[in-house]
Parts: sequence; C-alpha cells; structure tokens
Amino acid sequence: MKAVRLHAYRQPPSLEEVADPTITGPLDVIVRIGGAGLCRTDLHIVEGQWKTKSNVSLPYTLGHENAGWVDAVGSAVDNVDVGDVVIVHPLITCGLCRACRAGDDMHCVRGAFPGIDTDGGFAQFLRTGARSVVKLDPGVRPEDVAALADAGLTAYHAVKKAVPILYPGTHAVVLGAGGLGHIGVQSLKALTAATVTVVDRSEAALQLARDCGADHTVLADGSQVAKVRDLTEGAGCEAVIDFVGEGGALEDGIAMLRRSGTYYVIGYGGALQIPAIDIISTEINFVGNLVGTYNDLAELMTLTAQARVTLRTQTYPLDAVNDAMDDLQRGRLHGRGILIPTPA
Amino acid sequence: MKAVRLHAYRQPPSLEEVADPTITGPLDVIVRIGGAGLCRTDLHIVEGQWKTKSNVSLPYTLGHENAGWVDAVGSAVDNVDVGDVVIVHPLITCGLCRACRAGDDMHCVRGAFPGIDTDGGFAQFLRTGARSVVKLDPGVRPEDVAALADAGLTAYHAVKKAVPILYPGTHAVVLGAGGLGHIGVQSLKALTAATVTVVDRSEAALQLARDCGADHTVLADGSQVAKVRDLTEGAGCEAVIDFVGEGGALEDGIAMLRRSGTYYVIGYGGALQIPAIDIISTEINFVGNLVGTYNDLAELMTLTAQARVTLRTQTYPLDAVNDAMDDLQRGRLHGRGILIPTPA
Amino acid sequence: MKAVRLHAYRQPPSLEEVADPTITGPLDVIVRIGGAGLCRTDLHIVEGQWKTKSNVSLPYTLGHENAGWVDAVGSAVDNVDVGDVVIVHPLITCGLCRACRAGDDMHCVRGAFPGIDTDGGFAQFLRTGARSVVKLDPGVRPEDVAALADAGLTAYHAVKKAVPILYPGTHAVVLGAGGLGHIGVQSLKALTAATVTVVDRSEAALQLARDCGADHTVLADGSQVAKVRDLTEGAGCEAVIDFVGEGGALEDGIAMLRRSGTYYVIGYGGALQIPAIDIISTEINFVGNLVGTYNDLAELMTLTAQARVTLRTQTYPLDAVNDAMDDLQRGRLHGRGILIPTPA
Amino acid sequence: MKAVRLHAYRQPPSLEEVADPTITGPLDVIVRIGGAGLCRTDLHIVEGQWKTKSNVSLPYTLGHENAGWVDAVGSAVDNVDVGDVVIVHPLITCGLCRACRAGDDMHCVRGAFPGIDTDGGFAQFLRTGARSVVKLDPGVRPEDVAALADAGLTAYHAVKKAVPILYPGTHAVVLGAGGLGHIGVQSLKALTAATVTVVDRSEAALQLARDCGADHTVLADGSQVAKVRDLTEGAGCEAVIDFVGEGGALEDGIAMLRRSGTYYVIGYGGALQIPAIDIISTEINFVGNLVGTYNDLAELMTLTAQARVTLRTQTYPLDAVNDAMDDLQRGRLHGRGILIPTPA
Repeated sequence: MKAVRLHAYRQPPSLEEVADPTITGPLDVIVRIGGAGLCRTDLHIVEGQWKTKSNVSLPYTLGHENAGWVDAVGSAVDNVDVGDVVIVHPLITCGLCRACRAGDDMHCVRGAFPGIDTDGGFAQFLRTGARSVVKLDPGVRPEDVAALADAGLTAYHAVKKAVPILYPGTHAVVLGAGGLGHIGVQSLKALTAATVTVVDRSEAALQLARDCGADHTVLADGSQVAKVRDLTEGAGCEAVIDFVGEGGALEDGIAMLRRSGTYYVIGYGGALQIPAIDIISTEINFVGNLVGTYNDLAELMTLTAQARVTLRTQTYPLDAVNDAMDDLQRGRLHGRGILIPTPA
Repeated sequence: MKAVRLHAYRQPPSLEEVADPTITGPLDVIVRIGGAGLCRTDLHIVEGQWKTKSNVSLPYTLGHENAGWVDAVGSAVDNVDVGDVVIVHPLITCGLCRACRAGDDMHCVRGAFPGIDTDGGFAQFLRTGARSVVKLDPGVRPEDVAALADAGLTAYHAVKKAVPILYPGTHAVVLGAGGLGHIGVQSLKALTAATVTVVDRSEAALQLARDCGADHTVLADGSQVAKVRDLTEGAGCEAVIDFVGEGGALEDGIAMLRRSGTYYVIGYGGALQIPAIDIISTEINFVGNLVGTYNDLAELMTLTAQARVTLRTQTYPLDAVNDAMDDLQRGRLHGRGILIPTPA
Repeated sequence: MKAVRLHAYRQPPSLEEVADPTITGPLDVIVRIGGAGLCRTDLHIVEGQWKTKSNVSLPYTLGHENAGWVDAVGSAVDNVDVGDVVIVHPLITCGLCRACRAGDDMHCVRGAFPGIDTDGGFAQFLRTGARSVVKLDPGVRPEDVAALADAGLTAYHAVKKAVPILYPGTHAVVLGAGGLGHIGVQSLKALTAATVTVVDRSEAALQLARDCGADHTVLADGSQVAKVRDLTEGAGCEAVIDFVGEGGALEDGIAMLRRSGTYYVIGYGGALQIPAIDIISTEINFVGNLVGTYNDLAELMTLTAQARVTLRTQTYPLDAVNDAMDDLQRGRLHGRGILIPTPA
Repeated sequence: MKAVRLHAYRQPPSLEEVADPTITGPLDVIVRIGGAGLCRTDLHIVEGQWKTKSNVSLPYTLGHENAGWVDAVGSAVDNVDVGDVVIVHPLITCGLCRACRAGDDMHCVRGAFPGIDTDGGFAQFLRTGARSVVKLDPGVRPEDVAALADAGLTAYHAVKKAVPILYPGTHAVVLGAGGLGHIGVQSLKALTAATVTVVDRSEAALQLARDCGADHTVLADGSQVAKVRDLTEGAGCEAVIDFVGEGGALEDGIAMLRRSGTYYVIGYGGALQIPAIDIISTEINFVGNLVGTYNDLAELMTLTAQARVTLRTQTYPLDAVNDAMDDLQRGRLHGRGILIPTPA
C-alpha cells in the first residue's frame, strides 16, 4: 500500500510503497483509511519535538487522526463488521489497566499511539484494535469526520473539563480559532451557557469563530488582553482554553484570567513561565490536555450527528501531503486539512 | 496597645505603641490576641514580594495567623460573645458576593486580609468581622491553635483538594515538612488512605514527618527524584504537595509526578517553568492554593479537637519578633513560631 | 397595607388590612411587592400539608415567590439602595452557619421562609434580609420575573444537579410542563446537550413544552411509559425530572428510568414506594430538591437577561387571589399565575 | 467437578457432579475456586426474589463471591498466568460498552453475573473473563479474601460514594454490622474522618463493630432513632449506610437522617416508602448500590494488603453448604461464611 513515511527529522516525509498491515491478534482491526487529518503535531513531529517523547524508530508512517471502513477483523472482534464506517480513537489500548478501566484511555500503561509511536493513518490501511473504533452510520463519509478523531476530540475533551466552572454568567476565552479552536467554540456553545470570546491573529479565523457561535471576537493585535479584561468588567475570565500555546499566547492568557480561574493548556510549542507567587496569590490552575477518551469521542460524534458541531475542512490527495503541510505551516489552511488515502 | 509595625521594605519591623482598634460597624469583632503565628510570608512581605500585590500603605501591623479572646462586638453580632475563645479566619469577608456565597472566602470581592493589606495580629488587639471567627471550647489556649489559622488552614485546604485523586494505592509526595508540611502530612493521613512520602533537606524535619505519620521520608540530598520514582515503581506519584516552592523544589516535584498527576503549589519564592509540550504530553495539572475557606478552618479545628492533627510550635513574646523571624530565616525554628501578645 | 392572610386550614385565605412591616435590624430590607407568584405549594398549604412541617402560627400572609422595589433598608445594608428593582430569594438566611457558608441557603440553621413559616409576599410590602435580594436592571418589571424566585429557581436547581449526568447522547424526561416544568425544559436546553422529552396530561402543556425547546413530547394517556422506552431504544432515560409528584407520576417515572439513572423529586403530594431490591438491582438514585441557592437564582437571572429562559405568566390583581387559586386548582392557569400587589 | 446447584425455588440447592467448564473464547479464564463466600443474596435467590430479575434457567450453580487460582486461560489472555492467585470481580464484562469504558462494570450492557444469571463459584471451577480477575500476591489464601469479592466490594463501593459528603465533623450511621457492615465500618475509618455509629440488633455484632473501629454503637432495641439523634445533637446524620434494608431499617434510617443527608441503600428485602413531601422539604437523597467496580475491588485489595481492612470469616467445606445457609438464616454466622471447594 501507499504510505507517508518519516525517514529523518527536519526532512519532509515521503510517499512510498510498504506492506499492508495484517491481523496479528484476535482483537485487531484493519481500517481502510478514507480520511486522515493533518495536525500541527505532524509539523512538530517533523521538527523533532516528539523525538525523545515518543522514542519511535524511523522510518514510520505519520497520521493520528483517522476514519475509514473496517477492512478486516481478528477472531474475537464482535463490535464491528467488515464494511462498517468507523472513526478511530487515536490510541490502541489494553482495556485491562487502571487507566483504561477508569475510561482514561490516553493513559493506558500499554497503549500505542499510531502516527506518534507506531505506524499511523497517512496510508491506505491502518491497524488498530477493537477498543478503538467508533461505529458510525453507513452514510457518513470518513473524510467529513476524520478531523474529529484528534482535533475535535482534543478540543471537546478540554471543553468538557471546563464545563463545571462555566455556569451562566461566566466567561470563557478561546485562544486560536483554527482546526481545534473552531470545534472548541461549538463544544462550548453546546455544553454551557457561558459567554465565549475568541482571540486570534487572523480576521478570517475570527469570522470562522463567529460562524461557530462565538459571542465576541478579539483580534490579537497587541490590545487583546485589555480588550478581554474590558469584556469581563476588569475581573478576567473564569476559563482560558489555549489552542495556541506559543508565541506569547501563554503570557496573554494568564493575564486574561480571573482570580481562581483555570487555564486549559492544549496548544504547545512555547513554555509556561510564571512566578509561584502569581499562582498562589490568585489561586489559579493549569490543566494539561491530551487528546481525549473513547467516550468523549462517542459524545462528540453524537453532537456531530445532531449538527451541533460541524467541521470546516480542506481536502488533499495523499500524495499532496507536503503541499498540505506547507499550507498549514504558512497559515493558508483554513479549518482542518484532510488527506484522502482511499476515496469512498 | 503594642504592635509590630512594618515601616519600610527590607528593614526589620518594630514594636511600638499604637491606638487600640475600635468597633466601627455592627458586624465588627475585636479579638484580644493570645497567639499569632509567624509565617514565611512575613519574611516575604519584609523582602517586598507582596508590595505590588497587596498595595498596603506603610506602616502597618503584620500578623495573619491569629487566635485569642473576643474583646468587643458590634451591635449585630450574635454568633460570639465577649470572652469566647476564637480562632480567626485570615480574611474579613462581605458574605454577599458570589465567592462568599459559594464558600470561597479567599476570593471575596471586598475582602480585607489583616496582616497582608490591613492591620494584623502581631498586636494586643485585632479588628475582624463576625464572619471570620470560629468559636472554640473555653479550655483551648489560643497559642496552642493559632498556627492552624494560616499554616494549618493552607495545608488542609490543599490536601482537601487532593482527596478525590488519592484513592487507596496512590502515592502523595509532600515537599517540605516545616510549619505547613507537618500539618499537611497529618491531614493526608486523616483524610485519605494514600501512601505519603515526605521530602526535606533536614533530617530533623524528616523525623517530625515520621512522627506525623509519613509512610516514607526522603532526604533531599540530590537523589530525591530517583528515590521517589523508585518508591512508586518508576511511575511517579499522583499528587505532589509542594510547601517549598523555591530552590529547585518545583523542578524536582514535576519530575516526581505521574502521568495525569496533579501538582499543588503552596510554597512560593521560585517560578514554575515548563515547556507546554511537557504539560500536554503527560496531561498533568497545576493547582494554586491560597489559605482556605472558613468551613475548611472549622473542619481542621474538628480534626484538632479529635487529636488527629497536632501542632509543633515554639513560642516567643511579642517583643522577640525579630529573634523569631531570624530563627525562621536561618532554619532554627522547628514546627511553627508563635508570638504571644497577651498571655492567657 | 393589604395582605392575603390564611386564618384556618382548608378555608380560603382572605385579603385584609395589616400593619406595614418595619426595619428591625441592621440587615433588614423592606421590598414593595410588584409581583408575587402563585404556586401549587400555596394550595398544599391551605390543604394543611405543611402544617406540621412549618409549624407556622395562623393567621399569616402567604406568598413565597416575590419581586419588587427596595422600599427601606437597615443601617448596615450596602448591597442595594431604596428604589432598586430586586427579585427575592425565598429564604432569609444568617450567612454564618455551615450551610450558608457552603452556599446551601435552603438549609440555613436559622433560616426563615416568608410565605411558609413567616409573613410572605401576597402583600404590598415584605420584610426580608440583605442576603436575600438580587439586584436587577432598572428596566425590569417585577411581575415579569417574580415566578423565577421559586418556580424558576426550583426547576433550575434540579436541572443543575442533573447536568453532570446529561452528556451528549443522554436522555432527560421531564414530567409536567406547568409553571416549573416549562422553565425546567428551557434550563435543560441551556445547560446541556441532552435530548429532552416532556410528558404531560394536557396537549396545551405539551405545546408550551415544544415552544420551550422540548425535543419530544408524550401525552400521558396511559402509553407514556412505553413511549418513553421506545424513544430511548428500550433502555430508559438517564434522568427523570418530576415536577408532578402525585397521581401516578412517581410509578411512571421510575419505570422510565435507565439502569443507574437518577430521579429528581420536585413535585409532591404522592409517595415514593419501591422495593429496596428494585433500587439496588438497577442501582438507581432519588434526589430531593427544595427551591435553590442564591447563586442559582443569580445564574437564572442571567439566563433570563440573555433570553435563554422566558416565562409564560398570567396576572391577577391581589384581591383576585382566590380566583387565581381556583384557576390553578382546576388546570385553567397556563404557565405561572402572578399576583400584582403594587403596580409599577 | 462438584457443584452446588439450585433446581427449584424454595428448595435447598444440592451438591452434585457436573462437567468442568472449558475455555471457549480467547479471553476466557478458568479459576479453581479456593474460597466462595455465602451471601444473604443466596438466601434471597433460593426464596425466589431474583427469579424475574435474573431470568436464569434452573438448574444452575450458585456462588457470586469467589477467589482461587488460575487454572486455564484463553489464547489472548496476558494479564494472568496459570497458577496465579486471583480474586474474581463478580461480573463478566465486555470492555467495549459505555459503562465498561466508564469503569462502571456493574452496568455492562452484555455483562453476565456468575452465581446470579449463569453458573457461579460454589463449585471446584468457575469460568470468568480476563477483565474480571485481580491478581494477588502468591502467598494469599483464597479463602481469606473471597468475601471481599462481593460483601467487601459492595460495602466499599457504597462507602466510596459517601466520601465526598463525610468531611471532618460529619456523622455516618451504619445499619447492620454483619458480613458487609463490618467491612463498611473499616472502609469508613480508612477513607474518612467522619464519626461512625453502628446500629444492630445483636450485641455480638456491635462488639465486632467496635473491634472494627466504630466510634459509637447503638443496640436496636427500639430506642435507636432517639439515640442516634442524641449523638448528633438532634440534627441527624449526614449519611445512613443501610446494610439491612428490611424489618424497619429503612424507616429508622430515614428518621436518623439530617436535612440534605443521603441514604445509601444496600441491604434489601423491605421497601422504601416515603411521602414525596418528606423528600423535598428536607432535600434528602437515596442512592442505590450494586456490588462495585473492578477498580473498587483493586483498591479494596490494597486496603487489605495494608491491613486497614480485615475480614471475620467462618469456613465450611463445599458439601456443608446447607448447614452454612441455615447458620446464616438463623443468625448463627458471625462475619462471613466461606465455602471451600478446593483446599489450598
């Protein structure tokens, strides 16, 4: 099959022919990939940011945001059949460790993360496990939902953590209205009655945010902290949901936070730097977020089926992967980029 | 009356004669101070760390950890009588704002913080409000409990936040077994079944931790991170409760944390510095802590009455305040230092 | 002033002249009543259901759902001024007990409940406390919001308890779409993404439910349990929110509940009767609900100001109280009945 | 193998020879039973109380509280090996449904419950699944821990739900200090700082409760409600944990409850009967409890390994099952009865 393989850090990945994955255990599932989302993390992987974290051996296949059709199943799989449309939870999990049993799939002690530490879905076929596939209605096109498998899931997961503090009258600030942010805004509107303000450097992104239901949008032109404080009558906001995580976003976001507010860290690239006295004197919190749980993904697919969450995507054939990465890098990609390894 | 007043930052406070506080509103309470705890924050105030945070006008009276006897009450006070033994919650609160009504006294929008931004309890008398006094049994000596008003309350408040993640089989690491830490250890043992490991640079502090029920103690001699990871079979601990917050404690604590673990920031002086990728790839959290609520203080007084929490203190007359501050600065003060403005 | 007084159980209350209430303490607030909601509880009081619970001495003034203008304030009141438009939280609370400090106003150990155990708001003036008034925008008409003080607050309070279990894909069943139910439906739609099904005996009530955003409506014609189970694919619903509480509603609601579901008891008159084995074999829960907290009321006023919750009311002059009670008794009152003691 | 089979309701089960269970799927596990606890539910099954709830076809093998040694495993089992000592979670679960993924094993949509709706562990061998076995230290004797698989798990599960409301100063009342209750008391002492009062009809049971750490014991001689109210200064207790559920326990327990308190229903046989007005006027809650989760069981095994929870048991050979059931019925069984199908 064709697959997009990374051979060396700081060099573009290449499309090449590799062996098809095969069923090796009773709970394996092979998915024919109909849509694979491109993520800023793919850029960060190529840059080498994940090198020591994933310890993956090069070369390997990128792509951690996948949807498609079940192509083959192991002998003990009884939750999906060949031909089913599925979206793929990003991790392959054991189902037996404490984390899996608590629904906390991301922290499976024996988990594998296709596209991060093992072969991913920028390919015609992907091997995953029975625990990782969410069955969808037969009419759903994988390319239309693939971006929910990671961008959507991550945004939803962070928003869901924020729900308990976002009662009516509170204010949530979303930093960044790109692939994740535009789903975050819709999730906030679906799950809470909070006022939602979106901050971005791009007017086009702010327009997308308004289309997604943002109550206020603020251009990040240097006045963004002052404007958010004005919108919150000087008090700051209860929640900052940061999908940027670099280039000054963290400093801005902290300055927008109210006493006892909570900062949800999702975007990365930069660093959190804050005197401990500033954390304790206002009693603020920082919450890390990594993708989401299988149940989160199932809930998000429900919101999508109910049309409460919709995606803005731009598609590319698999062999245009480097064009797509270039578009993402240069800010020319609006919404989420989706590679299509095998058309419907 | 006699009071310890700060006239200039970076200069020792001085004991002097000032006017007694008087009842000015129907909910005022004047407390004759029988014990006033000395806190590392008092050193930080003198150093100027709180200058721009508190905006207090100098000179003013230090002392934010107070207990004593009710000396006078306003016309509408009906929860305490003159002569009652009371411990004083650190804030004077309005009782009408959202934070007060949610029990979150520390974030009262009109709150005053005696000893921080208004006159405190290193004095013979303190003015506070009816909402801030916890009535105690007549036999309690203020000097024996004063340290619970801030050191104890802060430690208990942080521990209480950690209770939901500290189910049987988990591991909590306490950094620092001083005035706060030794109460934190006892609170952990009273409220959870977690294994408690204490890290400190001082063998005497570790002995105090063992006396307080610590399951393991680790000398901070450079091997502390490795030792904690060994004690947790390489996985790290679910909770770090950091009563130090400077001198490498934060870096150590982060390195001791398990995936999806939570770091409770209490001590300060240093800074939190961490790449965002390290927060998201392990999905860890940082939780700020500032003193505690009135209900927390009432619960802690219950634990004390039940002998589940006991204090290690060292007393000084009020005019020895600078000796006490010097002892604290130089690490010669074991447990908590208590000034005694008016003996029982 | 004029007031509606109950002189004997099982006899209609009468409108008569009584002395105006006066300021007796520094935190008292006198409100000129512009709107006072009529509640099924007023019928239950007249029937004697509350006789041994409230222990009130007859005669006294009914009316526990009040809004109006501040007419006078005690010396220590600084959160409202004479002339302010206010909605009145149903309880007068001390602000000092554990319950008040935890935000749980309904369980104040020294609370008074005007209209239940002391003089209420079916009168030109009401005495309450500074802690009980929520200041509104000057343009708000008390008669337009009064029903939120109890009907709205109770419905919102119960819905808010249900929010954590109502993630996307779940199903909430509301029993009864009257004065409380129609606010319950709007609160569910504002705070959750759950599917909402409303059951009522009246087609007019079901039409009101649809206008309020109900996803499904079911006529209670004997087939309601089967229909709800069909709507939930046989599994039953995660939450039943019962605003009826009599006449078979409890039996129906239990039969509609899913394994590990939760039943919110709000309406009353009937009894809960269930074998313990039916509670444990499905692991279901029953949650009592009594009015709501001050913070709940403030949140609900925010939802109203945002037009996410609107009221259906029918107004009566104060001297038509017995007509209004008769209309409510006979099911001729659509939405909530509002008495108007003093017009704007 | 030998097994205790129920052939008809209201008739004693009989010991007979049946075929050994065999591995039929890749995740099956066969356990050689070293200890199988006898439960009041076994009596209730024989009485026919579970007939319409379990729909089991007679004859079948009783026994839902099991521990032993792994005897055989399916091809995909990698969490235990033949020879391992294991305690068996009472349900066989799919690991794929929402409930399993949320850790809520009891509500698996495809779960089987050996001893209730399929063949159980009053036999030499039991077939269960890889997801249901908790591996223990090699030195543990199955007969010493078997009672934790259901009695212990159920008690622990209910206590764990109560932890958030049992802060220092609160009061928990335990009804019944038998097989479940004596573990409930120890769990309460391990996980909370609440005051624990135990009510029972038997002085021997109260002695066991005191040995387990109960702070107060009250003989159920007719004065129990008054005595509990005295112990709580008239206010009632925050939590009632009812391990009896019949013979007046529910009426007593409700009368012991404080405003906004919570009643945990575990024992059964009787019925909950309460006017809805009594639920709403005090805002109390009823929480059903059914066994517990796998993670609960793992936590409880940790408490046992730490000697924070110990069991009181009485052993019988498998062929004495009817003597054991008779002893339980007649109140002659102190602690938990354990059948030993295959000795160590």
